[in-house]
Amino acid sequence: MNTQDPLHKLVFEFAKLPSIGKKTAQRLAYYIMSQSEENALELANSIIDAKRKVNFCENCFNYSENASCRICNDSSRDTGIICVTETPREIDVIESTHEYSGTYHVLHGLIAPLKGISPENLKIRELLNRIEKNEIREIIIALDFTVEADATTLYLTRLIKPLGVSITRIASGIPAGASLEFADTVTLGQALRGRIKL
Amino acid sequence: MNTQDPLHKLVFEFAKLPSIGKKTAQRLAYYIMSQSEENALELANSIIDAKRKVNFCENCFNYSENASCRICNDSSRDTGIICVTETPREIDVIESTHEYSGTYHVLHGLIAPLKGISPENLKIRELLNRIEKNEIREIIIALDFTVEADATTLYLTRLIKPLGVSITRIASGIPAGASLEFADTVTLGQALRGRIKL
Repeated sequence: MNTQDPLHKLVFEFAKLPSIGKKTAQRLAYYIMSQSEENALELANSIIDAKRKVNFCENCFNYSENASCRICNDSSRDTGIICVTETPREIDVIESTHEYSGTYHVLHGLIAPLKGISPENLKIRELLNRIEKNEIREIIIALDFTVEADATTLYLTRLIKPLGVSITRIASGIPAGASLEFADTVTLGQALRGRIKL
Repeated sequence: MNTQDPLHKLVFEFAKLPSIGKKTAQRLAYYIMSQSEENALELANSIIDAKRKVNFCENCFNYSENASCRICNDSSRDTGIICVTETPREIDVIESTHEYSGTYHVLHGLIAPLKGISPENLKIRELLNRIEKNEIREIIIALDFTVEADATTLYLTRLIKPLGVSITRIASGIPAGASLEFADTVTLGQALRGRIKL
């Protein structure tokens, strides 16, 4: 593809984004061309703004424009509970459930020795600092259910349990609305082990 | 959604794009955040560049950085054939077939009285001017197979046929690799009417 020409360069840049194939990249580029310059600049400036103005919250490592994020600043949140996530993205998902009113802590990755990611590369020391300096009742692990997430959960449990803080992990089981018939055996096994008393 | 905060503003801007839902917009925004500032600026600047530097070719109304587009400037193209498209996007698709070496003419829309689009709003006068001023052997209509495209094709045929120029339309029929069993009756009817001698 000729990336010298600005239109094809734009297709090329869009196609670098995740889940955007060549066809979608073309559709997006031609859409931009069909819009007013004002609309196109609004998108371009949003990208620049988001990248330049947003940093990490010094407490929980969520994305934030200020030194402290909107959740850490919110006095109505229960600061006695910390929900641990892999990336800031999960915070949006958990917030949209409206089921959680505690605070968060973003690890920014999972322990993965094969990828060269060890505990020191993650925000684990910072989590332990928060537990030591504050009155924390519970740590909720909201990581994926993958081998790396399981290993990270085990590592965190071994560090946090001795501190006398309750540590829990979100449930693994059959998704809402799904039929047992189509559940894989691993999920079904986890759902059985995680059964709750009615 | 809070569009004051730069990250959510970016999600909001991405979600305005065609075929990008809220979830994909979030994925894209978080991807941008995970990239270097250099990569993010490259995308932002591509949007600005494409919008600011690209205009229309004065001859065929394809997108072009210069007064005349790369296809109109290419002396190896057969200037005796003009392929008529609705938007510049179709040119890329037709070019990728490597089956066509003529020139193009972009109408920038279809006749649609209900949407208030009449022939004067399209680049039809400009097409007739090209036919009058040049030695044109054939006009190929490469429009969709919709009611509006059919009406536009009929309109163009009535104008161009009297000029003694051959006018053709790309074939409608069963897609390559598809089975007759799953073809709708309209397509099958068009495939029958458009049958070719072997």
